[in-house]
Amino acid sequence: MQAPLQNHVLISEVGPRDGLQSVSRTMATDYKLRWITALYDAGLREIEVCSFVPAKHLPQMADGAKVVEHALSLPGLTVMALVPNRRGAQSALKAGVHKLTVPVSASAAHSLANVRKTRDEMVEEIRAIAALRSELAPQVQLEVGISTAFGCTLQGDVPEDDVIRLAAQCVAAGADESGLSDTVGYANPTQVRRLFRRLRAEIGDRAGAAHMHNTRGLGLANCLAAWDEGVRTFDSSLGGLGGCPYAPGASGNVVTEDLVFMFEAMGLCTGVDIGKLLAARVPLRAGLPGEPIYGMTPEACLPKGFVQGVACV
Amino acid sequence: MQAPLQNHVLISEVGPRDGLQSVSRTMATDYKLRWITALYDAGLREIEVCSFVPAKHLPQMADGAKVVEHALSLPGLTVMALVPNRRGAQSALKAGVHKLTVPVSASAAHSLANVRKTRDEMVEEIRAIAALRSELAPQVQLEVGISTAFGCTLQGDVPEDDVIRLAAQCVAAGADESGLSDTVGYANPTQVRRLFRRLRAEIGDRAGAAHMHNTRGLGLANCLAAWDEGVRTFDSSLGGLGGCPYAPGASGNVVTEDLVFMFEAMGLCTGVDIGKLLAARVPLRAGLPGEPIYGMTPEACLPKGFVQGVACV
Repeated sequence: MQAPLQNHVLISEVGPRDGLQSVSRTMATDYKLRWITALYDAGLREIEVCSFVPAKHLPQMADGAKVVEHALSLPGLTVMALVPNRRGAQSALKAGVHKLTVPVSASAAHSLANVRKTRDEMVEEIRAIAALRSELAPQVQLEVGISTAFGCTLQGDVPEDDVIRLAAQCVAAGADESGLSDTVGYANPTQVRRLFRRLRAEIGDRAGAAHMHNTRGLGLANCLAAWDEGVRTFDSSLGGLGGCPYAPGASGNVVTEDLVFMFEAMGLCTGVDIGKLLAARVPLRAGLPGEPIYGMTPEACLPKGFVQGVACV
Repeated sequence: MQAPLQNHVLISEVGPRDGLQSVSRTMATDYKLRWITALYDAGLREIEVCSFVPAKHLPQMADGAKVVEHALSLPGLTVMALVPNRRGAQSALKAGVHKLTVPVSASAAHSLANVRKTRDEMVEEIRAIAALRSELAPQVQLEVGISTAFGCTLQGDVPEDDVIRLAAQCVAAGADESGLSDTVGYANPTQVRRLFRRLRAEIGDRAGAAHMHNTRGLGLANCLAAWDEGVRTFDSSLGGLGGCPYAPGASGNVVTEDLVFMFEAMGLCTGVDIGKLLAARVPLRAGLPGEPIYGMTPEACLPKGFVQGVACV
């Protein structure tokens, strides 16, 4: 969901799902709860807390219902879960989430490799999830993230027409919004501007979040480009955890700390306290000792005399 | 100097000066020459090869004349040297450089701390250097880089009026162009756009390069912002060497490899071959074994099917 004011930005924290899912170890449930609380205390108001997938595939996410239960106790937090299909949606709705997010790949090759479904079959899955949502919990938001929207490691180029058509099909099938994800870090600012402009022309206010990766260092530049095109919701993860990092120093996901710093320095309101955000790294480190986490702002500290939150009046 | 075409970008490589100057060890002259040749072979056509300062202050730069002599043998390369004052300019002109660059700090505190001169005294130094240039080698370009243009670790905020006035004074004193440097990594895209817009309004085509740092991860986003405002020359260093890095993973200078990747991916022409640019890391590593160097694109490799140089026709 887009933040309401022109100078407001919604940072959608994906670390507890996207981040933890890409780490082979499993963070103990207690640490997850402490970490989510710390993220909330920093001012984050949308958190992707888990995914609902078979535990045999992703043992890291087996405690989803417990994690959701805790997150629901935090007032004003939008509790989001990733679900790959109708069955996952059923579990998530039963757990009481506020928002479902479903990845739908614009790359034909990636769609088959990732969920063993064609893109058309995924649109039908969205239709089924939307119907289930309307039946069980009509207030729940349903978001689609068009993955590999900017290119794919399997098929290379992904035609822009495919991306835009798929986003429109998902909205027509019942999704409240479709965002665009740079799953493999191929995006560049010119492409980001062009695609979000086309997306908005096609589906208007149902154009959703920008989910950018920092694989080649362009994460923040691509977020800036998306901001310029009117995007007001951005996915990122604390410490850049997750998002298929390729190499030391090359985080996959955009680093929440750096993203918040950029927007706050630009005089925009994220609602996030950077000092408390840095403190949220403590339970992350404690729960996954030795796991590499990233971020330039945490190392460099804030500029002398830096005042944040000036736009949040 | 701005590249002539709207879709062309000039990458001004500062590693052999700015990079090597911030490393306490001294790279042997032979390695410097090999490194500069490799940068040239990759297509870079402006390189800041050394500074002319007393060897007792910067022993790393004691072989400046020899380095310049070698660089002058590379056809079509603009050979640039940093000089802090008239005496340094004299040595650089004698060595035969094509371009002088002089840092002039917009922060009163930083100016005194860095060169023990007030800003007004530095404007007079520019006047003296310009006169010397006209006398000895009128074809040589004189560039000023306004340092701490976006903030200062000593005095914090730097008034924008100070920055713009100083740039205009330097041009009036004889500089061919004034660029803006984010010496300490404080800049944000909104500020970058605002300042370069004001600079262009004030001095027109004499508005020079953007020298951005990646201290807080915003280096490429700030370069994008400067590009949007018409800047066509960007300073960066191979492997992000130099530029006061604060911490592991936090390079100071913008990484040439990532910057070239961004612009090429945007369909712009840098004239630089990314594969050969990666090869230029070899002599850098060989000449400074164990020195940390940075860059995401070198770790992640190019996207599948990526074609560069499409705009260079």
